[in-house]
Amino acid sequence: MDILRKEINSIYYSQALDSELLNAAEVAACRRLAEGYVSVNGACSVITDASCDRCYLFAGRLGALMGLTDAPQLYQEVDSSDEDIIYNRLHPEDLVEKRMLEYEYFKFVDALSPEEKLHYKATSRIRIMDRSGRYIVLDNSVQILRHSPAGKIWLIMCCYDLASSQEAGIDINPRIVNNLTGEIITMSLSDRKERILTEREKEILLLIKEGKPSKQIADILGISVHTVSRHRQNIIEKLSVGNSVEAVMAATSMKLL
Amino acid sequence: MDILRKEINSIYYSQALDSELLNAAEVAACRRLAEGYVSVNGACSVITDASCDRCYLFAGRLGALMGLTDAPQLYQEVDSSDEDIIYNRLHPEDLVEKRMLEYEYFKFVDALSPEEKLHYKATSRIRIMDRSGRYIVLDNSVQILRHSPAGKIWLIMCCYDLASSQEAGIDINPRIVNNLTGEIITMSLSDRKERILTEREKEILLLIKEGKPSKQIADILGISVHTVSRHRQNIIEKLSVGNSVEAVMAATSMKLL
Repeated sequence: MDILRKEINSIYYSQALDSELLNAAEVAACRRLAEGYVSVNGACSVITDASCDRCYLFAGRLGALMGLTDAPQLYQEVDSSDEDIIYNRLHPEDLVEKRMLEYEYFKFVDALSPEEKLHYKATSRIRIMDRSGRYIVLDNSVQILRHSPAGKIWLIMCCYDLASSQEAGIDINPRIVNNLTGEIITMSLSDRKERILTEREKEILLLIKEGKPSKQIADILGISVHTVSRHRQNIIEKLSVGNSVEAVMAATSMKLL
Repeated sequence: MDILRKEINSIYYSQALDSELLNAAEVAACRRLAEGYVSVNGACSVITDASCDRCYLFAGRLGALMGLTDAPQLYQEVDSSDEDIIYNRLHPEDLVEKRMLEYEYFKFVDALSPEEKLHYKATSRIRIMDRSGRYIVLDNSVQILRHSPAGKIWLIMCCYDLASSQEAGIDINPRIVNNLTGEIITMSLSDRKERILTEREKEILLLIKEGKPSKQIADILGISVHTVSRHRQNIIEKLSVGNSVEAVMAATSMKLL
């Protein structure tokens, strides 16, 4: 399911930002902001520095409930653009939708002027496994806090807070919100989700799910065993899993089949 | 409709906090927190100091949309526990429900230990008139940031943010949320709302609404004109209005009749 993570990373977290032009005081200011935010909302906040693929995670009172820490507070610096400690606890369906939303959001803000980049945030409602193994519903927001002198996406803030309604919806309720005008764009991710795997790949994955070996799949579809193997490999790569069984599980949890 | 405001003020904003024991640095820290919060969520944040009936209001990018300011940012110090600049723009129905929620919330946290006071917040969804005269839906939260050395409610933070769903519900969706355990208490305010006016007061107000003079009301209800006048006075006082006509309007907008 990490094809989108790869796409996001390759486009936005590996930009050639001229780090000499970036002011370290701005990073410190945004870290203080994230820390302060968490001290208010109690939950969790992450600053990602796209110039160096690094993130700073702060978890407050809800961190323990979220299963992130046993301590009353948590601070972590991670050499990655991803807060894996959180992503690992996200419901698999929500993770893929969150990544899709982020992808659409980054694509959207990337096209804006530097100043406009700061006005939009992406919001969603996601499920995270709590310390007792149940899913709780969180409000999530992602926004650009600073752009580079050249106007590129630089410092990103991601906030998690307990949602005041614990009812899970039919999707993560993905939105892009303009903080200045109040404009709210309702995202439809289902199209994009549909397009992760090709129709042929889905056909093959369904046959794998039924327990059919490559030879039989090749016969059923009237293609060569070599072609089936190539498709298998593409599917495994797209879903960032280790083998065909894991691919079936990932695609099922993502409701791609 | 300000009977609850009076109740809240008299109980919580006029406490005898020993101001000599209160640390001014804490107020400054909470003001920075509110300012930082607004720089993230764009909307509006208020710190109320219950020791001196004073509040500090910060509005960010959404402030202009909310009709609070023409400037990109707004900072205001107010000699009152109320952020009138916002309350004046709230939908009258939502204002009374918000006050009820605050009243229930303060009563709830007041009974807790000093440490526990900091774990609960009250959340709601309210309508505010935007600069063009339409109502927009905001997420609102109220929480205690600091207690006094004696454990009393001292510094309170109130946050307003654009809700990602602009659909108004049947009520303000009042909740009390525990930041530590994730516990969510759904509040029912309708009982309390019902009890603001007595049945007799409602009867009288309905007759006033029909344009009947006191003498006629007295005859209909079989009570003295003096008693009708006394009820009128109580109603006017309870609803914090200037006269009977305003009382009818207030009670109607609050859906008490």
